[in-house]
Amino acid sequence: MDKGKFYCVGVGPGDKELITVKALNALKRADLIAVPCMKNGESTAYGIVEDYISGKDIINFHTPMSKDFAALDKNYANIAKTITALLDSGKSVAFITLGDPSVYSTAMQVNTDIAAMGYETEVIPGITSFCAAAARLNMSLCERDEALVVLPASYSDAVSGLKLKGTKVLMKAGRAISDVKDMLDKEGMLDKASMVECCGMENEKIYKSLSELDLDSTSSYFSIIIVKDNG
Amino acid sequence: MDKGKFYCVGVGPGDKELITVKALNALKRADLIAVPCMKNGESTAYGIVEDYISGKDIINFHTPMSKDFAALDKNYANIAKTITALLDSGKSVAFITLGDPSVYSTAMQVNTDIAAMGYETEVIPGITSFCAAAARLNMSLCERDEALVVLPASYSDAVSGLKLKGTKVLMKAGRAISDVKDMLDKEGMLDKASMVECCGMENEKIYKSLSELDLDSTSSYFSIIIVKDNG
Repeated sequence: MDKGKFYCVGVGPGDKELITVKALNALKRADLIAVPCMKNGESTAYGIVEDYISGKDIINFHTPMSKDFAALDKNYANIAKTITALLDSGKSVAFITLGDPSVYSTAMQVNTDIAAMGYETEVIPGITSFCAAAARLNMSLCERDEALVVLPASYSDAVSGLKLKGTKVLMKAGRAISDVKDMLDKEGMLDKASMVECCGMENEKIYKSLSELDLDSTSSYFSIIIVKDNG
Repeated sequence: MDKGKFYCVGVGPGDKELITVKALNALKRADLIAVPCMKNGESTAYGIVEDYISGKDIINFHTPMSKDFAALDKNYANIAKTITALLDSGKSVAFITLGDPSVYSTAMQVNTDIAAMGYETEVIPGITSFCAAAARLNMSLCERDEALVVLPASYSDAVSGLKLKGTKVLMKAGRAISDVKDMLDKEGMLDKASMVECCGMENEKIYKSLSELDLDSTSSYFSIIIVKDNG
């Protein structure tokens, strides 16, 4: 029997229209849709494709966020094992992921494991959350000779990254938003920083300047902060 | 009479399927499609949307590539003037752009001019060429605590950018590809660098390592080089 194909599919940042024709075609072609979800079963990626995949079989995978890299690797290996069993039975599987697979995604790590085992895989790029946030802010990320620096906000190197020339994008601030705001304040960058929370989703919030942000509010994991050199 | 709306539409990196549902809907809604083209009238962006816009009126704009920023600004202002005259007559206009509008695009600069004059504008993000290149290489751009640095390869600061930690993406190497290869060689990065030329287009070429690149060949403007810290 022919083995099934694995599709690693970026479904964009949240807006249901920000999915590509190629992603829709892959979802149509796949026998099974693999869905990353939280412990309680919630999945933002599933919410995006829900209307496009009615009637398809779904398989949920709990993909916790953690800085325990060994535990994460073990989880990816387990997911890859379950999926390759399905591929062996001839079924093709589309693993969906929020945004783009190449930017901080679980799906790409699963894809790497599966490709290394010799299965046919295809990665389908998606709209990144930072491009979508820039679009909502009517703002360019880089022009002419400017660099663009994407940093995970909650890691220790973020401060040195902020000193780089060019536009800085801080991702994954999440619960560390208060520290991130402090850091930007110390660097005198608060007024050069804008933020989009839950970009393209129902509860989207736009802050033209981060100084508008009320720190008593809890920021979402899906916050994108853009710091421009010239404010 | 109501003024028309301006759409700044990212159409992705070259593959006709890598366009979003939102971009297609904007193209459908617009009365006129504004197309950036070279002096000879050629337009890669037009090639992507051609099948989706049959019967629509087209307006071509010559958008030269140049490092003469004053000349570029003057050209954007002229384009904005022509487009706002159309918006004033009640027509909505979709200006298409390769990749994503927020990443080195003419369209965003035109959008900024038009928005500043008080017209209604909407930016629709697109798949960036570097996400598409990473997908074709089956490679992540950033994982966990890694930074991602996007640099215009043909500008003088590129060397210092290469020394930054994280994954480096070099864009717009174009005719300077030989200098870029020399630079990577000097930094000992040639084997850590992969390249996709004309990603998703008919003449796509993939180099898993830049040391495979024959320098006698002429590289396209549409080359994306990805340099990983760990090769």
